[in-house]
Amino acid sequence: MSTAIAEGKTKLVFDVGKGRVLLVFKDTITAGDGDRRDQMNGKGEINAKTSAILFSELTKGGVKNHFIEQKDERSLVVRKLQMIPVEVVVRNIATGSIVKRLPIKEGHPFDPPLVEFFLKDDARHDPLLNYAHMEHLGLMRREEAIEVERLALAANEVLQDFLDPKGLVLYDLKVEVGRDGSSLMLGDELTLDSMRVRTKSNGEVLDKDLYRRGENLEVVKKAYVRFLEMVSN
Amino acid sequence: MSTAIAEGKTKLVFDVGKGRVLLVFKDTITAGDGDRRDQMNGKGEINAKTSAILFSELTKGGVKNHFIEQKDERSLVVRKLQMIPVEVVVRNIATGSIVKRLPIKEGHPFDPPLVEFFLKDDARHDPLLNYAHMEHLGLMRREEAIEVERLALAANEVLQDFLDPKGLVLYDLKVEVGRDGSSLMLGDELTLDSMRVRTKSNGEVLDKDLYRRGENLEVVKKAYVRFLEMVSN
Repeated sequence: MSTAIAEGKTKLVFDVGKGRVLLVFKDTITAGDGDRRDQMNGKGEINAKTSAILFSELTKGGVKNHFIEQKDERSLVVRKLQMIPVEVVVRNIATGSIVKRLPIKEGHPFDPPLVEFFLKDDARHDPLLNYAHMEHLGLMRREEAIEVERLALAANEVLQDFLDPKGLVLYDLKVEVGRDGSSLMLGDELTLDSMRVRTKSNGEVLDKDLYRRGENLEVVKKAYVRFLEMVSN
Repeated sequence: MSTAIAEGKTKLVFDVGKGRVLLVFKDTITAGDGDRRDQMNGKGEINAKTSAILFSELTKGGVKNHFIEQKDERSLVVRKLQMIPVEVVVRNIATGSIVKRLPIKEGHPFDPPLVEFFLKDDARHDPLLNYAHMEHLGLMRREEAIEVERLALAANEVLQDFLDPKGLVLYDLKVEVGRDGSSLMLGDELTLDSMRVRTKSNGEVLDKDLYRRGENLEVVKKAYVRFLEMVSN
Protein backbone atom coordinates (compact mmCIF):
# COMPACT_ATOMS: atom_id res chain seq x y z
CA MET A 1 0.00 0.00 0.00
CA SER A 2 1.15 3.58 -0.64
CA THR A 3 2.32 5.77 2.23
CA ALA A 4 -0.21 7.42 4.49
CA ILE A 5 -1.26 10.96 3.54
CA ALA A 6 -2.00 11.66 7.21
CA GLU A 7 -1.47 9.97 10.54
CA GLY A 8 -3.29 10.82 13.74
CA LYS A 9 -2.88 9.38 17.23
CA THR A 10 -5.27 6.50 16.45
CA LYS A 11 -5.68 6.34 12.66
CA LEU A 12 -3.80 6.30 9.38
CA VAL A 13 -5.25 7.83 6.21
CA PHE A 14 -4.44 6.52 2.71
CA ASP A 15 -5.57 8.10 -0.53
CA VAL A 16 -7.27 5.44 -2.66
CA GLY A 17 -8.29 7.75 -5.52
CA LYS A 18 -11.71 8.74 -6.91
CA GLY A 19 -12.18 11.19 -4.03
CA ARG A 20 -11.92 8.43 -1.43
CA VAL A 21 -9.56 7.63 1.41
CA LEU A 22 -8.98 4.57 3.53
CA LEU A 23 -9.08 5.08 7.30
CA VAL A 24 -7.01 2.44 9.09
CA PHE A 25 -7.68 2.23 12.82
CA LYS A 26 -4.62 1.59 15.01
CA ASP A 27 -4.61 -0.24 18.35
CA THR A 28 -3.33 2.90 20.09
CA ILE A 29 -5.31 4.42 22.94
CA THR A 30 -4.31 7.84 24.30
CA ALA A 31 -5.39 10.38 26.91
CA GLY A 32 -4.35 13.77 28.22
CA ASP A 33 -3.71 15.33 24.78
CA GLY A 34 -1.46 12.41 23.93
CA ASP A 35 0.51 12.44 27.20
CA ARG A 36 -0.57 8.85 27.97
CA ARG A 37 -0.47 6.27 25.23
CA ASP A 38 -0.90 2.49 25.18
CA GLN A 39 -1.50 -0.35 22.74
CA MET A 40 -4.84 -2.07 23.32
CA ASN A 41 -4.86 -5.28 21.32
CA GLY A 42 -7.85 -5.46 18.97
CA LYS A 43 -8.89 -1.83 19.49
CA GLY A 44 -8.40 -0.99 15.81
CA GLU A 45 -10.86 -3.67 14.76
CA ILE A 46 -13.36 -2.77 17.47
CA ASN A 47 -13.31 0.91 16.57
CA ALA A 48 -13.48 0.37 12.80
CA LYS A 49 -16.56 -1.84 13.26
CA THR A 50 -18.14 0.53 15.81
CA SER A 51 -17.63 3.48 13.47
CA ALA A 52 -19.07 1.59 10.52
CA ILE A 53 -22.22 0.74 12.49
CA LEU A 54 -22.74 4.23 13.89
CA PHE A 55 -22.02 6.09 10.65
CA SER A 56 -24.50 3.75 8.89
CA GLU A 57 -27.09 4.85 11.43
CA LEU A 58 -26.34 8.50 10.64
CA THR A 59 -26.72 7.83 6.94
CA LYS A 60 -30.08 6.11 7.56
CA GLY A 61 -31.06 9.12 9.66
CA GLY A 62 -30.18 11.53 6.87
CA VAL A 63 -27.12 13.06 8.56
CA LYS A 64 -24.45 13.82 5.96
CA ASN A 65 -21.20 11.97 6.68
CA HIS A 66 -18.13 10.60 4.93
CA PHE A 67 -18.76 6.85 5.40
CA ILE A 68 -18.91 4.63 2.31
CA GLU A 69 -18.12 1.07 3.40
CA GLN A 70 -16.04 -1.11 5.68
CA LYS A 71 -13.07 -2.43 3.71
CA ASP A 72 -11.50 -4.93 6.11
CA GLU A 73 -11.43 -5.59 9.86
CA ARG A 74 -9.69 -2.36 10.71
CA SER A 75 -10.33 -0.16 7.67
CA LEU A 76 -13.13 2.00 6.34
CA VAL A 77 -13.47 3.54 2.90
CA VAL A 78 -14.72 7.09 3.31
CA ARG A 79 -15.17 10.18 1.20
CA LYS A 80 -12.03 12.31 1.10
CA LEU A 81 -12.81 15.53 2.94
CA GLN A 82 -10.84 18.65 3.57
CA MET A 83 -10.98 18.28 7.35
CA ILE A 84 -11.42 21.31 9.60
CA PRO A 85 -9.10 21.01 12.64
CA VAL A 86 -11.90 21.52 15.14
CA GLU A 87 -13.60 19.17 17.59
CA VAL A 88 -17.34 19.69 17.88
CA VAL A 89 -18.67 18.47 21.22
CA VAL A 90 -22.37 17.88 21.88
CA ARG A 91 -23.29 17.41 25.53
CA ASN A 92 -26.52 15.82 26.79
CA ILE A 93 -25.41 15.32 30.40
CA ALA A 94 -22.59 17.23 32.07
CA THR A 95 -19.41 15.31 32.83
CA GLY A 96 -15.71 15.65 32.05
CA SER A 97 -13.99 18.97 31.36
CA ILE A 98 -17.11 21.14 31.49
CA VAL A 99 -17.81 20.51 35.18
CA LYS A 100 -14.31 21.75 36.04
CA ARG A 101 -14.35 24.65 33.60
CA LEU A 102 -17.78 26.10 34.41
CA PRO A 103 -20.13 26.22 37.42
CA ILE A 104 -22.13 23.26 36.12
CA LYS A 105 -22.60 20.16 38.25
CA GLU A 106 -21.71 16.60 37.24
CA GLY A 107 -24.85 14.95 35.88
CA HIS A 108 -26.60 18.21 34.95
CA PRO A 109 -28.85 17.54 31.92
CA PHE A 110 -28.57 19.94 28.98
CA ASP A 111 -31.88 20.58 27.28
CA PRO A 112 -31.33 21.48 24.51
CA PRO A 113 -27.97 19.75 24.17
CA LEU A 114 -24.96 22.07 24.46
CA VAL A 115 -22.56 22.45 21.54
CA GLU A 116 -18.92 23.55 21.90
CA PHE A 117 -16.09 23.96 19.41
CA PHE A 118 -12.45 23.27 20.33
CA LEU A 119 -9.33 23.80 18.29
CA LYS A 120 -7.41 20.55 17.67
CA ASP A 121 -4.14 21.71 19.20
CA ASP A 122 -2.62 19.33 21.77
CA ALA A 123 0.15 21.76 22.70
CA ARG A 124 -2.47 24.36 23.69
CA HIS A 125 -4.76 21.68 25.22
CA ASP A 126 -7.52 22.10 22.63
CA PRO A 127 -8.77 25.59 23.51
CA LEU A 128 -12.47 26.47 23.32
CA LEU A 129 -13.46 28.58 20.30
CA ASN A 130 -16.32 30.95 19.65
CA TYR A 131 -17.67 31.80 16.18
CA ALA A 132 -15.43 34.87 15.92
CA HIS A 133 -12.29 32.86 16.73
CA MET A 134 -13.16 30.35 14.02
CA GLU A 135 -13.66 33.12 11.46
CA HIS A 136 -10.39 34.80 12.43
CA LEU A 137 -8.44 31.54 12.33
CA GLY A 138 -9.90 30.79 8.88
CA LEU A 139 -11.57 27.61 10.15
CA MET A 140 -15.20 28.29 9.27
CA ARG A 141 -17.52 31.21 8.77
CA ARG A 142 -20.27 31.92 11.30
CA GLU A 143 -22.97 30.55 8.96
CA GLU A 144 -20.92 27.38 8.50
CA ALA A 145 -20.49 27.02 12.26
CA ILE A 146 -24.26 27.19 12.65
CA GLU A 147 -24.63 24.51 9.95
CA VAL A 148 -22.04 22.37 11.72
CA GLU A 149 -23.97 22.75 14.97
CA ARG A 150 -27.09 21.51 13.19
CA LEU A 151 -25.19 18.52 11.79
CA ALA A 152 -23.71 17.67 15.20
CA LEU A 153 -27.09 17.99 16.93
CA ALA A 154 -28.73 15.83 14.26
CA ALA A 155 -26.04 13.16 14.72
CA ASN A 156 -26.56 13.32 18.47
CA GLU A 157 -30.30 12.81 18.07
CA VAL A 158 -29.94 9.87 15.68
CA LEU A 159 -27.43 8.20 18.00
CA GLN A 160 -29.56 8.78 21.09
CA ASP A 161 -32.54 7.22 19.31
CA PHE A 162 -30.39 4.28 18.28
CA LEU A 163 -28.74 3.71 21.68
CA ASP A 164 -31.68 4.33 23.98
CA PRO A 165 -33.66 1.14 23.13
CA LYS A 166 -30.43 -0.81 23.71
CA GLY A 167 -30.32 0.46 27.28
CA LEU A 168 -27.51 2.95 26.63
CA VAL A 169 -27.30 6.63 27.54
CA LEU A 170 -25.23 8.98 25.37
CA TYR A 171 -23.68 11.55 27.71
CA ASP A 172 -21.72 13.40 25.07
CA LEU A 173 -20.27 13.08 21.62
CA LYS A 174 -17.30 14.55 19.76
CA VAL A 175 -17.51 14.87 16.01
CA GLU A 176 -15.26 16.36 13.38
CA VAL A 177 -16.32 17.90 10.12
CA GLY A 178 -14.85 18.46 6.71
CA ARG A 179 -15.62 19.95 3.34
CA ASP A 180 -16.47 17.99 0.22
CA GLY A 181 -16.30 20.91 -2.20
CA SER A 182 -18.55 23.48 -0.57
CA SER A 183 -20.61 20.86 1.28
CA LEU A 184 -19.99 20.25 4.99
CA MET A 185 -20.28 16.73 6.39
CA LEU A 186 -19.21 14.66 9.37
CA GLY A 187 -15.89 12.85 9.10
CA ASP A 188 -13.42 11.15 11.45
CA GLU A 189 -14.76 8.36 13.68
CA LEU A 190 -17.67 7.48 15.96
CA THR A 191 -16.32 5.27 18.71
CA LEU A 192 -15.98 5.02 22.46
CA ASP A 193 -12.88 7.19 22.10
CA SER A 194 -15.11 10.02 20.91
CA MET A 195 -18.33 9.63 22.93
CA ARG A 196 -19.35 8.92 26.48
CA VAL A 197 -21.85 6.12 26.97
CA ARG A 198 -23.20 4.58 30.16
CA THR A 199 -25.69 1.82 30.79
CA LYS A 200 -29.17 3.04 31.65
CA SER A 201 -29.70 0.35 34.28
CA ASN A 202 -26.78 1.09 36.58
CA GLY A 203 -24.68 3.83 35.03
CA GLU A 204 -21.71 1.62 34.12
CA VAL A 205 -19.17 3.58 32.10
CA LEU A 206 -18.40 1.92 28.74
CA ASP A 207 -16.16 4.54 27.15
CA LYS A 208 -12.62 5.92 27.21
CA ASP A 209 -13.23 7.52 30.62
CA LEU A 210 -12.27 4.05 31.95
CA TYR A 211 -8.81 4.53 30.44
CA ARG A 212 -8.65 8.21 31.47
CA ARG A 213 -9.25 7.21 35.09
CA GLY A 214 -6.55 4.55 34.93
CA GLU A 215 -8.43 1.24 34.60
CA ASN A 216 -6.32 -1.57 33.16
CA LEU A 217 -6.56 -2.26 29.43
CA GLU A 218 -8.48 -5.52 29.90
CA VAL A 219 -11.29 -3.65 31.65
CA VAL A 220 -11.31 -0.97 28.96
CA LYS A 221 -11.36 -3.52 26.16
CA LYS A 222 -14.16 -5.51 27.80
CA ALA A 223 -16.31 -2.36 27.87
CA TYR A 224 -15.56 -1.54 24.21
CA VAL A 225 -16.43 -5.11 23.18
CA ARG A 226 -19.61 -5.10 25.26
CA PHE A 227 -20.73 -1.86 23.61
CA LEU A 228 -19.97 -3.23 20.15
CA GLU A 229 -22.05 -6.32 20.89
CA MET A 230 -24.93 -4.19 22.17
CA VAL A 231 -24.99 -2.00 19.05
CA SER A 232 -24.55 -5.00 16.72
CA ASN A 233 -27.88 -6.56 17.71
CA MET B 1 -23.43 56.86 54.23
CA SER B 2 -25.34 53.58 54.23
CA THR B 3 -23.52 50.28 53.82
CA ALA B 4 -22.39 49.15 50.39
CA ILE B 5 -24.81 46.92 48.48
CA ALA B 6 -21.86 45.39 46.64
CA GLU B 7 -18.08 45.45 46.83
CA GLY B 8 -15.72 44.40 44.10
CA LYS B 9 -11.93 44.25 44.04
CA THR B 10 -11.68 47.94 43.06
CA LYS B 11 -15.10 49.53 43.70
CA LEU B 12 -17.86 49.92 46.26
CA VAL B 13 -21.50 50.30 45.24
CA PHE B 14 -24.05 52.27 47.32
CA ASP B 15 -27.75 52.51 46.59
CA VAL B 16 -28.74 56.19 46.50
CA GLY B 17 -32.38 55.64 45.52
CA LYS B 18 -34.39 56.66 42.42
CA GLY B 19 -32.84 53.83 40.44
CA ARG B 20 -29.33 55.16 40.95
CA VAL B 21 -26.19 53.87 42.63
CA LEU B 22 -22.94 55.53 43.66
CA LEU B 23 -19.75 53.85 42.43
CA VAL B 24 -16.84 54.61 44.74
CA PHE B 25 -13.43 53.79 43.25
CA LYS B 26 -10.89 52.32 45.68
CA ASP B 27 -7.12 52.71 45.45
CA THR B 28 -6.72 48.94 45.12
CA ILE B 29 -4.96 47.50 42.08
CA THR B 30 -5.04 43.75 41.48
CA ALA B 31 -3.83 41.15 38.98
CA GLY B 32 -3.94 37.40 38.45
CA ASP B 33 -7.63 36.99 39.36
CA GLY B 34 -6.98 38.84 42.62
CA ASP B 35 -3.86 36.88 43.56
CA ARG B 36 -1.78 40.06 43.61
CA ARG B 37 -3.18 43.15 45.28
CA ASP B 38 -1.69 46.56 46.16
CA GLN B 39 -2.79 50.01 47.20
CA MET B 40 -1.89 52.65 44.63
CA ASN B 41 -2.36 56.06 46.19
CA GLY B 42 -4.71 58.24 44.14
CA LYS B 43 -5.86 55.43 41.82
CA GLY B 44 -9.47 55.78 42.95
CA GLU B 45 -9.56 59.42 41.88
CA ILE B 46 -7.74 58.77 38.61
CA ASN B 47 -10.06 55.94 37.65
CA ALA B 48 -13.26 57.76 38.63
CA LYS B 49 -12.23 60.73 36.48
CA THR B 50 -11.07 58.51 33.59
CA SER B 51 -14.36 56.60 33.66
CA ALA B 52 -16.38 59.83 33.74
CA ILE B 53 -14.56 61.16 30.67
CA LEU B 54 -14.79 57.95 28.66
CA PHE B 55 -18.42 57.18 29.51
CA SER B 56 -19.28 60.76 28.50
CA GLU B 57 -17.70 60.05 25.12
CA LEU B 58 -19.85 56.93 24.79
CA THR B 59 -22.97 58.92 25.61
CA LYS B 60 -22.02 61.55 22.98
CA GLY B 61 -21.47 58.69 20.53
CA GLY B 62 -24.91 57.23 21.25
CA VAL B 63 -23.70 54.11 23.06
CA LYS B 64 -26.10 53.25 25.87
CA ASN B 65 -24.36 53.23 29.26
CA HIS B 66 -25.06 53.71 32.95
CA PHE B 67 -23.16 56.98 33.54
CA ILE B 68 -25.06 59.98 34.95
CA GLU B 69 -22.50 62.29 36.59
CA GLN B 70 -19.34 62.49 38.62
CA LYS B 71 -20.29 63.05 42.27
CA ASP B 72 -16.92 63.71 43.93
CA GLU B 73 -13.24 62.94 43.25
CA ARG B 74 -13.64 59.19 43.52
CA SER B 75 -17.37 58.64 42.97
CA LEU B 76 -19.74 58.43 40.05
CA VAL B 77 -23.53 58.45 40.10
CA VAL B 78 -24.75 55.82 37.65
CA ARG B 79 -27.99 54.11 36.73
CA LYS B 80 -28.64 51.06 38.89
CA LEU B 81 -28.38 48.03 36.62
CA GLN B 82 -28.91 44.36 37.19
CA MET B 83 -25.35 43.44 36.23
CA ILE B 84 -24.59 40.31 34.21
CA PRO B 85 -21.48 38.56 35.65
CA VAL B 86 -19.71 38.42 32.30
CA GLU B 87 -16.70 40.28 30.93
CA VAL B 88 -17.02 41.29 27.29
CA VAL B 89 -13.63 41.73 25.65
CA VAL B 90 -13.16 43.53 22.33
CA ARG B 91 -9.74 43.07 20.73
CA ASN B 92 -8.27 45.30 18.03
CA ILE B 93 -4.69 44.05 18.28
CA ALA B 94 -3.67 40.70 19.78
CA THR B 95 -1.88 40.75 23.11
CA GLY B 96 -2.36 39.20 26.54
CA SER B 97 -4.19 35.94 27.14
CA ILE B 98 -5.27 35.35 23.55
CA VAL B 99 -1.74 34.91 22.20
CA LYS B 100 -1.12 32.12 24.73
CA ARG B 101 -4.52 30.52 24.34
CA LEU B 102 -4.74 30.44 20.53
CA PRO B 103 -2.30 30.27 17.61
CA ILE B 104 -2.46 34.04 17.12
CA LYS B 105 0.71 36.13 17.20
CA GLU B 106 1.36 39.11 19.47
CA GLY B 107 0.48 42.26 17.53
CA HIS B 108 -1.88 40.55 15.07
CA PRO B 109 -4.56 43.07 14.02
CA PHE B 110 -8.19 41.93 14.22
CA ASP B 111 -10.31 43.34 11.43
CA PRO B 112 -13.16 43.29 12.34
CA PRO B 113 -12.40 43.47 16.06
CA LEU B 114 -12.81 40.18 17.91
CA VAL B 115 -15.38 39.86 20.70
CA GLU B 116 -15.13 37.31 23.53
CA PHE B 117 -17.27 36.63 26.60
CA PHE B 118 -15.78 35.42 29.88
CA LEU B 119 -17.54 34.37 33.06
CA LYS B 120 -16.58 36.53 36.06
CA ASP B 121 -15.33 33.68 38.23
CA ASP B 122 -11.88 34.21 39.76
CA ALA B 123 -11.76 30.69 41.21
CA ARG B 124 -12.20 29.24 37.70
CA HIS B 125 -9.94 31.92 36.14
CA ASP B 126 -12.73 33.60 34.17
CA PRO B 127 -13.50 30.85 31.63
CA LEU B 128 -14.39 31.70 28.02
CA LEU B 129 -18.10 31.34 27.19
CA ASN B 130 -19.95 30.75 23.94
CA TYR B 131 -23.58 31.76 23.33
CA ALA B 132 -24.86 28.33 24.39
CA HIS B 133 -22.99 28.46 27.70
CA MET B 134 -24.49 31.86 28.46
CA GLU B 135 -28.00 30.59 27.71
CA HIS B 136 -27.49 27.49 29.86
CA LEU B 137 -26.04 29.48 32.75
CA GLY B 138 -29.01 31.88 32.56
CA LEU B 139 -26.71 34.83 31.81
CA MET B 140 -28.15 36.04 28.51
CA ARG B 141 -30.03 34.73 25.55
CA ARG B 142 -28.31 34.39 22.17
CA GLU B 143 -30.13 37.47 20.78
CA GLU B 144 -29.05 39.44 23.84
CA ALA B 145 -25.45 38.30 23.40
CA ILE B 146 -25.54 39.58 19.82
CA GLU B 147 -26.92 42.91 21.07
CA VAL B 148 -24.17 43.05 23.70
CA GLU B 149 -21.58 42.42 20.99
CA ARG B 150 -22.98 45.37 19.03
CA LEU B 151 -22.83 47.59 22.13
CA ALA B 152 -19.26 46.53 22.89
CA LEU B 153 -18.16 47.06 19.29
CA ALA B 154 -19.84 50.48 19.22
CA ALA B 155 -18.06 51.48 22.43
CA ASN B 156 -14.79 50.28 20.96
CA GLU B 157 -15.31 52.39 17.84
CA VAL B 158 -16.22 55.54 19.77
CA LEU B 159 -13.18 55.12 22.02
CA GLN B 160 -10.84 54.45 19.11
CA ASP B 161 -12.10 57.60 17.37
CA PHE B 162 -11.60 59.55 20.60
CA LEU B 163 -8.13 58.20 21.42
CA ASP B 164 -6.59 58.09 17.96
CA PRO B 165 -6.25 61.90 17.48
CA LYS B 166 -4.60 62.01 20.90
CA GLY B 167 -1.87 59.67 19.67
CA LEU B 168 -3.21 56.64 21.54
CA VAL B 169 -3.89 53.14 20.25
CA LEU B 170 -6.62 51.04 21.87
CA TYR B 171 -5.39 47.43 21.81
CA ASP B 172 -8.37 45.95 23.63
CA LEU B 173 -11.20 46.80 25.92
CA LYS B 174 -13.20 44.98 28.59
CA VAL B 175 -16.75 46.07 29.25
CA GLU B 176 -19.52 44.77 31.46
CA VAL B 177 -23.22 45.02 30.80
CA GLY B 178 -26.37 45.10 32.82
CA ARG B 179 -30.12 45.31 32.47
CA ASP B 180 -32.23 48.38 33.17
CA GLY B 181 -35.59 46.67 32.94
CA SER B 182 -35.42 44.87 29.61
CA SER B 183 -32.87 47.29 28.17
CA LEU B 184 -29.19 46.30 28.00
CA MET B 185 -26.50 48.91 28.56
CA LEU B 186 -22.83 49.22 29.47
CA GLY B 187 -22.01 49.46 33.16
CA ASP B 188 -18.94 49.07 35.37
CA GLU B 189 -15.89 51.22 34.54
CA LEU B 190 -13.77 52.40 31.62
CA THR B 191 -10.22 52.77 32.90
CA LEU B 192 -6.68 51.55 32.32
CA ASP B 193 -7.61 48.56 34.49
CA SER B 194 -10.08 47.51 31.82
CA MET B 195 -8.42 48.47 28.53
CA ARG B 196 -4.99 48.29 26.94
CA VAL B 197 -3.66 51.52 25.50
CA ARG B 198 -0.26 52.28 24.00
CA THR B 199 1.20 55.44 22.51
CA LYS B 200 1.13 55.53 18.73
CA SER B 201 4.58 57.15 18.50
CA ASN B 202 6.64 54.51 20.29
CA GLY B 203 4.31 51.87 21.66
CA GLU B 204 4.68 52.81 25.32
CA VAL B 205 2.31 50.82 27.50
CA LEU B 206 0.04 53.04 29.61
CA ASP B 207 -2.27 50.44 31.15
CA LYS B 208 -2.43 47.80 33.87
CA ASP B 209 -0.08 45.54 31.90
CA LEU B 210 2.66 47.60 33.62
CA TYR B 211 1.43 46.29 36.97
CA ARG B 212 0.86 42.78 35.62
CA ARG B 213 4.48 42.62 34.48
CA GLY B 214 5.72 43.80 37.88
CA GLU B 215 6.60 47.48 37.38
CA ASN B 216 6.66 49.47 40.60
CA LEU B 217 3.56 51.44 41.56
CA GLU B 218 5.14 54.83 40.82
CA VAL B 219 5.68 53.81 37.19
CA VAL B 220 2.12 52.46 36.95
CA LYS B 221 0.64 55.62 38.48
CA LYS B 222 2.68 57.88 36.21
CA ALA B 223 1.23 56.08 33.17
CA TYR B 224 -2.35 56.34 34.51
CA VAL B 225 -1.89 60.06 35.19
CA ARG B 226 -0.34 60.65 31.79
CA PHE B 227 -3.28 58.93 30.07
CA LEU B 228 -5.76 60.95 32.12
CA GLU B 229 -4.02 64.17 31.08
CA MET B 230 -4.04 63.12 27.43
CA VAL B 231 -7.77 62.36 27.44
CA SER B 232 -8.60 65.51 29.45
CA ASN B 233 -7.38 67.87 26.72
